[in-house]
Amino acid sequence: MKKRLFSGIQPSGDVHIGNYLGAIKNWVRLIDQYECIFCIVDYHAVTIEYNPKDMQKRILNAAAVNIASGLDPNRCIVFVQSYVPEHTELAWILNTITPMGHLERMTQFKDKSKQNAENINAGLFTYPILQAADILIYKSEAVPVGEDQVQHIELAREIVRKFNTRYGETFPEPKEILSEASRIMGLDGKAKMSKSLGNYISLVETPESIGKKLSTAVTDENRKRRTDAGNPDVCNLFTLHKHFSKNEQIETINAVCRTAEIGCVECKKILSNNIIETLTPIRLKYEHLVNDQDYLLNILHTGAKRCKEIVRDTMSEVKKKMGLI
Amino acid sequence: MKKRLFSGIQPSGDVHIGNYLGAIKNWVRLIDQYECIFCIVDYHAVTIEYNPKDMQKRILNAAAVNIASGLDPNRCIVFVQSYVPEHTELAWILNTITPMGHLERMTQFKDKSKQNAENINAGLFTYPILQAADILIYKSEAVPVGEDQVQHIELAREIVRKFNTRYGETFPEPKEILSEASRIMGLDGKAKMSKSLGNYISLVETPESIGKKLSTAVTDENRKRRTDAGNPDVCNLFTLHKHFSKNEQIETINAVCRTAEIGCVECKKILSNNIIETLTPIRLKYEHLVNDQDYLLNILHTGAKRCKEIVRDTMSEVKKKMGLI
Repeated sequence: MKKRLFSGIQPSGDVHIGNYLGAIKNWVRLIDQYECIFCIVDYHAVTIEYNPKDMQKRILNAAAVNIASGLDPNRCIVFVQSYVPEHTELAWILNTITPMGHLERMTQFKDKSKQNAENINAGLFTYPILQAADILIYKSEAVPVGEDQVQHIELAREIVRKFNTRYGETFPEPKEILSEASRIMGLDGKAKMSKSLGNYISLVETPESIGKKLSTAVTDENRKRRTDAGNPDVCNLFTLHKHFSKNEQIETINAVCRTAEIGCVECKKILSNNIIETLTPIRLKYEHLVNDQDYLLNILHTGAKRCKEIVRDTMSEVKKKMGLI
Repeated sequence: MKKRLFSGIQPSGDVHIGNYLGAIKNWVRLIDQYECIFCIVDYHAVTIEYNPKDMQKRILNAAAVNIASGLDPNRCIVFVQSYVPEHTELAWILNTITPMGHLERMTQFKDKSKQNAENINAGLFTYPILQAADILIYKSEAVPVGEDQVQHIELAREIVRKFNTRYGETFPEPKEILSEASRIMGLDGKAKMSKSLGNYISLVETPESIGKKLSTAVTDENRKRRTDAGNPDVCNLFTLHKHFSKNEQIETINAVCRTAEIGCVECKKILSNNIIETLTPIRLKYEHLVNDQDYLLNILHTGAKRCKEIVRDTMSEVKKKMGLI
């Protein structure tokens, strides 16, 4: 039997190619190895202030873009956290065995407390406990995360040991799968690609917009004139070529850039075509999903229904061991 | 329409006449004035270490003794908290709007942290939030509590204002109903009646045991000999007479104790008979309930079912306002 994998997805509105290369592409690869559960974590998202009017759209967009990028609902579960409220029930139970000191030392809590100084709430503080509940309620053994989440997975393992010791062997210890993803730089070549910096290409960007954004993207800054030789090793767009272009194109560019046989305009055109080629089917599928909300909701509710079956068993076992039923 | 009242009941095993006079008797009186919901709060009880093997018995005993004492399931709702997990779901939501500072200043948390220094967990810390969720999920307006819980009800009101401001008018501000109950002293006449001090009469004490416990109970300590005059004003058992004996008996004893016409042995006999008269129907009903577990569970599940109808409406309103559905 395949091991179970759980991953949370923030309903963060727009998803860019940095997210795709850094996370989603890895998840798609893991679908064959594991029994995968992908969860849009709306109950995590509400721990920071937000506009309730946007939330529903953010949830559905996140679902649509991830499904369109390859989280095929026929091969994995995609659902929304608040559709399966047992996550919060297990979180309450795990609260009761999680020492305050462990939560106080979480780096993310300290960081978020600084960023949200006017709203340091108990949800931010117990956030890693809900995260542990998300994972444990499915007895998941694998959790693909970035470096910044490793501390939370360690805490989840401590919680597992505490629960198993007190109430009897129940949960396996989950292990993180660290994303190998290269840190994708933004089009400004200066900072990590990010929505807030506006230096990104959306995963559902139109072909016109992709071409336009690339046209002003920073390349090798030492190459001032068309006739100057370029250096792909320091060119941010060459990194994107490595992800989106064909091997022979990559090899050719690596050579002809250095000899100034090709200029940045032409090179960007090739990259643009390749990004468009990769993203177009994703964008079309995405548009289909967001325009047929009933169909999208049906996918999410079907996913939640499968989760509820698993969750029912876990909660019944947990409650029995705790003497609650 | 009647206002709704919510009260939590700890599944604390044995219940004594101090609890009965201090809380349960008041609740019974409130059943006509309010639409009453009584909840055995097992999810609160697990915030301190306990033996899972005892918990189920503690829950069912608490339900049985409270129903037997007058919480008539035909006139109010009696149920178990963990049967309606939406309490924990709303608690999560309320976590996200409750400032850490508010929780840190809760007196009960500080006290319990001292008592459970080896297990200061996030459940103890967020305990008042689950309590607020218990109350608010039914839009309860009245909460009968002792002095020590007033701070938690104040916090619940702050949470209500915060939620209503952020997401729109949803919850009424709950008000505490302070129990007028006299502090019932233990049979030792020295400390408040309490299970741990062993100075109590259980609500389901047998007649023999009631007589025996009263026979060694402390009266007016200045009355050393049968022929000494007694002073009912300082006699702890006279307080119990006021709760259990008939008015004319109380008046007579108040007179003849002072003149030594009656001795403590005889006076205790009268009290014993009256306590037995009050407690016997409670004990018989209790025994019937604990011996017919299916019947008792049926009452609790019927109660939970009615709760679930209310809770469904509240959660659907809450989620809608938060943009989650």
